[in-house]
Amino acid sequence: MDKYNKVIKELIQFRNERDWEQFHDSKNLALAISIEASELNELFLWKKGDEVENVNPDKLKEELADVLAYAFLLAEKHNLDIFDIVSEKIKNNALKYPVEKAKGTAKKYNEL
Amino acid sequence: MDKYNKVIKELIQFRNERDWEQFHDSKNLALAISIEASELNELFLWKKGDEVENVNPDKLKEELADVLAYAFLLAEKHNLDIFDIVSEKIKNNALKYPVEKAKGTAKKYNEL
Amino acid sequence: MDKYNKVIKELIQFRNERDWEQFHDSKNLALAISIEASELNELFLWKKGDEVENVNPDKLKEELADVLAYAFLLAEKHNLDIFDIVSEKIKNNALKYPVEKAKGTAKKYNEL
Amino acid sequence: MDKYNKVIKELIQFRNERDWEQFHDSKNLALAISIEASELNELFLWKKGDEVENVNPDKLKEELADVLAYAFLLAEKHNLDIFDIVSEKIKNNALKYPVEKAKGTAKKYNEL
Repeated sequence: MDKYNKVIKELIQFRNERDWEQFHDSKNLALAISIEASELNELFLWKKGDEVENVNPDKLKEELADVLAYAFLLAEKHNLDIFDIVSEKIKNNALKYPVEKAKGTAKKYNEL
Repeated sequence: MDKYNKVIKELIQFRNERDWEQFHDSKNLALAISIEASELNELFLWKKGDEVENVNPDKLKEELADVLAYAFLLAEKHNLDIFDIVSEKIKNNALKYPVEKAKGTAKKYNEL
Repeated sequence: MDKYNKVIKELIQFRNERDWEQFHDSKNLALAISIEASELNELFLWKKGDEVENVNPDKLKEELADVLAYAFLLAEKHNLDIFDIVSEKIKNNALKYPVEKAKGTAKKYNEL
Repeated sequence: MDKYNKVIKELIQFRNERDWEQFHDSKNLALAISIEASELNELFLWKKGDEVENVNPDKLKEELADVLAYAFLLAEKHNLDIFDIVSEKIKNNALKYPVEKAKGTAKKYNEL
């Protein structure tokens, strides 16, 4: 079994042992992703310059892990392969952000 | 090369072709995760009951892919293995949420 | 002095006594609003039915106050009157959501 | 009637004309605040230095208005006076962030 399927199995087991599937509808899983993403952002709040890349690495690891854990559970619920959907999105974004227009600018595609 | 390393390579190539690494400090990557997570949540806003599991599957796929893409880039920047950090977090959460206390309840660990 | 101007004055005084204006650029104030909004949302995570309207009222009050405090500071920084901008937005939304099309539906304006 | 009560009245009228109160439970209102806060943050994504204070002022005004509108509706639902709760929070924060410890630092109260 590859590492992704191994960790999905661990997440499902953790959830089922606690009888938490009842809470894990897609709306609450999406909300959990957002809340964990905010906790990740809180590490960077008010920080600038060098401070940004020097946040506590253990906390960064934990908050990013929380985001990923709920994202994996939502993907699993909808039978989505996390690698395939990112790969597909990169292809779509390549059309929205052609290199010749998007190079070196952070503008949104509708402003290019 | 496994699927995770393949998609990371695609993300890096997409970024580098557009000269976007200059924008991708950790603070902005974390903010991008949060913004994409909110777009994912918007699919569920005001929805209840059956509507929740019947949101547009293409949009769900795309918004979840955006969250994952920025999460992968942030992990890569900090040399974090996405599977190891989630696995480690599950172990820590097992201590915060022991089965006998957490079973069937959605309370936070500090309220158990 | 009306209540709004009184509370703005208190916020500015609190900030200035701590020499925090240096951190309060618009990007960080917006991020602070988002982080506080997520803490507000955390009160509702996994909750359904009656539980939703029975969250801890003191925590609800505190988290909503944090959202408002940073929103007031961002408005003040840009010389925006919080009442005028909301009033103006209601007028714009009335055009995007005409009663005859929007009545009783939670669809977005671009799906009406 | 003061400006706050006038705008609350406009919000309620806008909502009731569209029969939207059915969607406005506290969980969805909190989620709406968060989603609008993210749209506000999107204006600042990837921006640095002078760009931060030069975002489109009309968009800033609109996104901040959306955050405030849902925050006002949530406050109204719980009979909270937006000015009193912010004033009270400032008093509590003064205890968590005493001037002599917090001056000139962006550390969280639990790290002071």
